[in-house]
Formats: sequence, structure tokens, C-alpha cells
Amino acid sequence: MTIAEGDMVLIALPDGTDFIVQATNDGYVSTHMGNILFAELIGKEFGSFIDVGRRKAYLFTPGIVDHVFALQRKTQVVYPKDMGYILLMLDAKSGDRIIECGTGSGAMTLALARSVGKTGKVYSYEKNARFLKNAEENVRLLGLHDCVVFKNSDIEDGIEESNADAFFLDVPDPLPVLPGMISTLRGGGRFCIICPTANQVQDVLKELRKEPCTRINVWETFVREMKTNPDRFRPEDKMVGHTTYLVFGTRTIWKES
Amino acid sequence: MTIAEGDMVLIALPDGTDFIVQATNDGYVSTHMGNILFAELIGKEFGSFIDVGRRKAYLFTPGIVDHVFALQRKTQVVYPKDMGYILLMLDAKSGDRIIECGTGSGAMTLALARSVGKTGKVYSYEKNARFLKNAEENVRLLGLHDCVVFKNSDIEDGIEESNADAFFLDVPDPLPVLPGMISTLRGGGRFCIICPTANQVQDVLKELRKEPCTRINVWETFVREMKTNPDRFRPEDKMVGHTTYLVFGTRTIWKES
Amino acid sequence: MTIAEGDMVLIALPDGTDFIVQATNDGYVSTHMGNILFAELIGKEFGSFIDVGRRKAYLFTPGIVDHVFALQRKTQVVYPKDMGYILLMLDAKSGDRIIECGTGSGAMTLALARSVGKTGKVYSYEKNARFLKNAEENVRLLGLHDCVVFKNSDIEDGIEESNADAFFLDVPDPLPVLPGMISTLRGGGRFCIICPTANQVQDVLKELRKEPCTRINVWETFVREMKTNPDRFRPEDKMVGHTTYLVFGTRTIWKES
Amino acid sequence: MTIAEGDMVLIALPDGTDFIVQATNDGYVSTHMGNILFAELIGKEFGSFIDVGRRKAYLFTPGIVDHVFALQRKTQVVYPKDMGYILLMLDAKSGDRIIECGTGSGAMTLALARSVGKTGKVYSYEKNARFLKNAEENVRLLGLHDCVVFKNSDIEDGIEESNADAFFLDVPDPLPVLPGMISTLRGGGRFCIICPTANQVQDVLKELRKEPCTRINVWETFVREMKTNPDRFRPEDKMVGHTTYLVFGTRTIWKES
Repeated sequence: MTIAEGDMVLIALPDGTDFIVQATNDGYVSTHMGNILFAELIGKEFGSFIDVGRRKAYLFTPGIVDHVFALQRKTQVVYPKDMGYILLMLDAKSGDRIIECGTGSGAMTLALARSVGKTGKVYSYEKNARFLKNAEENVRLLGLHDCVVFKNSDIEDGIEESNADAFFLDVPDPLPVLPGMISTLRGGGRFCIICPTANQVQDVLKELRKEPCTRINVWETFVREMKTNPDRFRPEDKMVGHTTYLVFGTRTIWKES
Repeated sequence: MTIAEGDMVLIALPDGTDFIVQATNDGYVSTHMGNILFAELIGKEFGSFIDVGRRKAYLFTPGIVDHVFALQRKTQVVYPKDMGYILLMLDAKSGDRIIECGTGSGAMTLALARSVGKTGKVYSYEKNARFLKNAEENVRLLGLHDCVVFKNSDIEDGIEESNADAFFLDVPDPLPVLPGMISTLRGGGRFCIICPTANQVQDVLKELRKEPCTRINVWETFVREMKTNPDRFRPEDKMVGHTTYLVFGTRTIWKES
Repeated sequence: MTIAEGDMVLIALPDGTDFIVQATNDGYVSTHMGNILFAELIGKEFGSFIDVGRRKAYLFTPGIVDHVFALQRKTQVVYPKDMGYILLMLDAKSGDRIIECGTGSGAMTLALARSVGKTGKVYSYEKNARFLKNAEENVRLLGLHDCVVFKNSDIEDGIEESNADAFFLDVPDPLPVLPGMISTLRGGGRFCIICPTANQVQDVLKELRKEPCTRINVWETFVREMKTNPDRFRPEDKMVGHTTYLVFGTRTIWKES
Repeated sequence: MTIAEGDMVLIALPDGTDFIVQATNDGYVSTHMGNILFAELIGKEFGSFIDVGRRKAYLFTPGIVDHVFALQRKTQVVYPKDMGYILLMLDAKSGDRIIECGTGSGAMTLALARSVGKTGKVYSYEKNARFLKNAEENVRLLGLHDCVVFKNSDIEDGIEESNADAFFLDVPDPLPVLPGMISTLRGGGRFCIICPTANQVQDVLKELRKEPCTRINVWETFVREMKTNPDRFRPEDKMVGHTTYLVFGTRTIWKES
């Protein structure tokens, strides 16, 4: 695979720093190891390297997870440790219609968009116009804009879609929008609610008792990175202690009484 | 969405037990709460319920994760906690060509197949003909057979594919097949190696130093389930302590010297 | 060290099962590997073995942690993973006067009694007379009865002691007794409150705001056991996911306003 | 309890910073909130406060754990999460004779010394004379110098004691000293070996097979701190991911063959 104009390229510096750029004929990225001209990337093979100063930087295809780590440096995002589990538990797949609120950094939008593909659709609600614009740009850069409909509005003002396959809810106060969220799902549709605090989970669990849903479960995820020296194999000294609790459930057609 | 003949249906009994069946006009499943005729399912809406004895069982569309939990009761599988993370880190997506070895229970095959979709392909190697047959049936039931090529052979005897986007290696002894695995990947192609023991990780890390690859990282994943009583919110008493270490890396075109 | 009549002995069977017995001239313990006469133990050296059927069982001095594991099989106790941390955070030491409520299984009583020694005292409150009797017997068997005053009463009816160095509170509902607990501590006295649920921690944290105390901190502890085969080094498959949250704090003389 | 000349005092500033000082008639400690004269502390009650600038600092009796956290800022120490568990698993108690090697920061020496008390003894070996001097000063400040014999020597050159109740081994390379360590223990004596890496655990486990010991077990410990706002109850964002593996075992008189 050869890098063509317009391709997204991950430049992996030898010190572990990554840069994600678009290969164009002009412009450059300035790194602490020296400048890299975008034009230099075109025609190189993915997996090969370019020289940066006296060292080598590898050129790779950026993955969703690389984009997410890049976004993570700028804003609060859903962490990879949670993202993979959420996609699996929502059973996000080709052809699905999935509602997201709010868009935020757009990290989860990217992951959902790629899961539903061109035969599906992500409807992403966000009140903050600036957030929405950023997320739209990221989605466009990854060529996923056909898979997403962005909506600059508050879901408290209503959700236009119905019969959705899944709902991903990541808002500061999920309580008032729970009934609306459930009602947009088809029977068997799945939801995930981000709740950073125990108080929110407790409130959400109480509220969900009134709603037509079942198979409620709550999880925390952890990942622990290991040092890669085979002669001194051991976990890293620090790890992420908490990001959020994840509340999952499934829409029923009739409420259990 | 109405259940039609041939659909896969998850029957969720009120005690938390799940059964995944195919809705046909004859046959039945025998549960500890009573028998359920498959014919009874047809025409019901997903998300609605049927009566089982004096109780209600909900009818849902089974997700990948439900199939995996079902397989998990019968055999050793890649756990959901690892599966979501692996898919993300391999950047598995529509159109990708991914090699898997060995097929085993086929749990990961299902997840990979759905990620690559009809425009991609999973090449799944397995020496054990009986395992392979089981996995093929599961893949067929989920309608994913067009996305997978099953190969009843040992990758130590060679891998026919090349320029693969990703490789998922889950064999008892990964060491001898590491060079072969790396050589089938395109530049920038990603791999994941399942290593249940620290010894295997150490050996693999040493061996990978000789191979054209970079961005090696090793992770453990954990999930902790919380009890769902909002008035007594707390984690479950037990959790899974270990499944496997996950070794990830990326193929380079030229080896760092 | 030779085993004398009256000594407590830990009999470690080769399959990992432990029995703690008192070496007397009559009586025996019946194990799945055969009977062991207590009289047989006397005169043997600690660390040596006796024959049980065709196998060997080692004879050891039982530690606090062995007694706790033995109690754990019969009743709910404070786990070793929490016990060590609590003793440290309460700064339990020789000469301290420590109040415990409730006694429960007496596991924590044993640990506290040994920490304060003959120059200190543990005051242990328990409403349930049967629990108290069991705990007293255990304390006597370990020769720690001079270090403990058992009280068959409810601390809601009042605590007679004052100026205590530490308080260990492990009751179903800690809220009503918080003010009483704090008032029995000396300035700088430390407390630990067992709270299995998040709701209890939240309630306790709110209530403590009204009390003369500071340095409030809340912890969870985990331990993960590793398999001991050096050629297949890896964690055990299962681990304890949760026992309790631990709330710690220190008494102040004047309340921050 | 009133602060007297010579007492150790923990000064807890309102921002969570702690200072441990000895109350003398002259001298002062300089903090970012202002200076505190030591003479000012004398006659104050433990648990009361002094004014520092416009704010209040509480005066407490420092616990072992406070000394350890203070040492932790300057050097590498055994963490509290491990310390409590080690003391429990070694069954460290009044009257015990315990050998430690190496002394290092002296954090574990303090904890062991207090456990064995005036009727027991800790023999602490350390090659580095400067480390030893620091540790001796800390032990003296806590009034525990009668409980400890410091030895400025390498245990590879021999251990003078025998029939010890417990051994705490924390050296860069434990392998060569394992036989010597085991031989100094009485039958039933317990040991703990600090092994930061998996490789060390594997080597130690192999070596211990040749030694007269049993009940070998290996643990990792974790603690997770929770935020103390009851309206937003959740774990802290970061946690310690790894300090060390802990290898425990018990001396037998005859080796299992």
C-alpha cells in the first residue's frame, strides 16, 4: 500500500510520539525532532520510514484507536478500554441505526460510524456548535461522513428518530432524557449510559425501573499495561484508576409489571 | 421488527438464563422453566415476550456478545473483556483482510467476520477438524459465511495469504509461527498474540526483536460487574482475575537495525 | 520449638487443606485423608511432619491469618486483604486502647488484640451473645484474653470508654452511632468504618461533615494471587471482586467551621 | 494527650500536606503557608490546631503509615498497600525475632520493630552505610531503637542469627541468598521476598523447590482511593498499577522429596 495524496498518515517518531497528518502536496508538521514535509510522504509505502534529523520515523495507517489517543490529548474522550467494550455490548454492526448524544469530542462517533458502515447511520446530537464542528471535521477526514448525521440540538427538545438499534448516552445529566432515549429504541434495541459517579448510576438504576427495559447491567473496565522488557517483565507503575461506570440495558416492548 | 422463520432469537428467561435458538416451524427448546416451541416465536415482535409456565421470557436479537457467552459455557473462548479491546487495537474494519489462527471455538471468528463485512475477508486456520466444523456452523447461523474462509491446516505448514491488514494469533505455542505471521502482514498491518502466561510473553517479546515490527505493547484487561440494586450499590463479590496477556504490534517494511 | 500440650497447631495436609487444633492428650481430628490423634503431635518439632495415610502433613504454628481463613470458612469476616491495611491505617500498636463494634466472628478482635498487647486493651461490643461467646473462645485459644474486654451490649445504648486511640466500626448501619464513636476518641484518634455499599459510604461521608474529624479517606483493597508454577507464571483465574469500602478518619478537638 | 518536648508531631496543613517534626524548644519548619515554630507546639493538645497564616493546621500523633508516606517522598519504600499484607502474612507479633535484609529506607524496619516490641528483636542488614544511618535515626525518633539491631554488612557474607520467626528479604538479587535465608528460620518460620519483576518470581519459585519450605504463595496487592465528595462518589482517576510481587513461604524441618 502506497501513500497517495489525501491519505491520512500516522507518523511514529522513535520516542513513541505520534502525529496524524493528511498527506498533501504542501504544508509540513513541526516536531521536536525536526520538520516533516507532507509532500515527502506521498509515494512512500505504509510501514516504511522517513528520516527525521538523524533518526527514523515510521509511516502507518492511523487506526480509530490512534485518532482517539490523539483526541484524548486535547479533550475528554471515551477511553479505548471502555470503547471496545461499549461497541461489543451495544452489538454495533454494519447496517445499524445508532443514536449518540452528546457528540463531544467525536471519538465515539468515529467508532460507531465505522461499525455501522455505509448501510447504517449514526445520528449524533450535540448542543455545543463548536464541538459539533470539530467532530464533523474528524469524521470527514476518516471518510466516514456518509455514515453520520450531525444534529446541533438538545435531545431534551426531542429526538426525531425511532426504532433505533442502539443508543449511546454520554451527557452530564442523563436522568431527564432516559424516557426519551428508551422510546426511540426498537424492541431489543440496546443502550449504554456513561455515568462517571456512583450517584448517577444509582439514580439511573432507579429511573430505569419505570421504563420498558431489561437486562440492565453495570460495569467498570480496567486495562493494565505491561513493560515490554522481556528480562524485567512487570506492569507499568501507574494505571488509570477510573474513567466511568457503564450502564447497559435492552428495550422491551411491554414493561414488566 | 417481527421474528421470521430462520431468524436467530435470544430467549431471555426471567432468572437471567439465556437460550439462543433459530426460529423454525418445528422443534423446541427444553428449559428448566418449561418447553418453548420454536414455531411459537414466529410473528412475535423482537422485544416482546412469550409465556413460559407462569412467567415471561423476552425475545431479543442475539448479539455477538450473547453468542460468545453461549460458546463460553461449552468451551474456552476469548472473553468479551478482551474481545472488544482486541478488535479496537487491531483496527478491524469493513474491507479488511484478517488472518486468524487458530479458529478454536470460533468466538473471535464471529467478531472479526462482522467487523470486516462482505467487502473484507477473514482467513481462519485450524488444525482440529471438529473445532472447524463447529465454528463454521456458528458463522453460518449468523449469516457471516461469505466473510470467512476456513482452512483446516496448520500455519506451521505455511500461510497462503499475504499483505494482510491484521493477524490474530491464538495458539498454544506462538513462538515458531511468529516470523511467518509477521511476513503475511502488509506494512502497517497489526497483530495481536494471545499469551496466557508471563513466560510466553517474555519469549514472544524476545523473538519479536528479530522481526520487522514496532509499537509493541502488552496489556491485561479487567472488567468488574456492579450489582444493580440502587439502594445497595456495590461491585459483585467475585470477578475474573485473569484470562490472558495481550501482545500487540505493527509490521514495518524494514527492520530497525 | 517443640509442640507442647495446649499448643495450637496448624496441620497442613499435602492438598493444601489446613486444620487448626489444640494439642491435647486425647481427641483427634478427622480429615478426608485419615484421622490424626492430637496426642501424636506432642513432642514433634514445629515445621516437621506426621504421616497421614501414605502422605505427610506438616505441623506449623498457626498465624492470625490462618485463624482468619479458618473463621472465613464458617462466617463472614474481615478479609486479610483489608485487615492488614486497617491495622496499618489505624496505627494499632502496643499499649493502644481500641474500641471495636461489633465483634462479629472475632477475626478483627484477634488482630487488634495482638497489636495492642498486654499493655493495651481492646473493648469489643457485640449485641449477639452467641457471636460474643465464639469470639471469646477464639481469643482465649490464642492466649489473648487479657488484651480484650468483651461487652454484650449495643453501642447505641452508650459506650463507657473515652479517650480511645482508635475505633473499628463494623455494624450493619453505622449512621446512628457515628457521633458516639467520634466522641469516644482522643484528639488524633483514628477510626475505620466498614461500608460494603456505595450508599453507606455516601451517607457516612455526609454525616462525618458534622463531626469533629478530618483526614477522611476512602479505599478499596484488592489482592490477586498468582499461580506458583514458574514455567507457567500467571495470575489465578478468579479473584475476589469486592468485600467492602473502608472509610478512615482522624478525630479533631475542635470542629472546622 | 498534650504535646510534650521531644514528642513527634504530625502537622496537617489544610491543603493535605503533612509535616512530621519533633517538638523542641527551638527551631521551626518552613512551609508554603508560613513558618511554624516548634516551641509553639508544646502544651497544645493532640487533635487541636495552630494558626498558620490565616489558616489552621491540625496537630496529630504521626502513625507508622505517615512516616512511610514521608519516607516515600524521598526514596523507594515498601508501599502501605503491601506493608499491611506483609506484616499479616509474616504473622509478625510481640516477641518475634525477625531478620530483614536490606534495610533500605527503613520503612519496613519501623513496621517490623513496632510489631515485635521490646520483647522481640529485628535484625536489619544493610550494605550501604548511609542508608543504615538514616534508618537508625528514624527508628530512634520513634523510640524503637531497643527493638532493632542494625548490621552494616552483606548477608551474602553470612547471617549470624538462627531460629528466626520470620525473614523479610528485599534485595536487588534474592537468588544467591535464598538458601542462607531459609536456613536461619526456625521450623514453621515464615518469609516474604520482594520481587518487582515476573522474571525474579519465576527464578525464585524454581530455586525454592530445592529448599526445605512449603506453602509458597505469590500475591499482588492493589488499593484504589475513592474521592470523598458524597454527591459525586467515584474512584480517583489514577492509581498505582504495580509496586512488586510478594512471594511468601514457610520453613519446613525436612525437605519434601
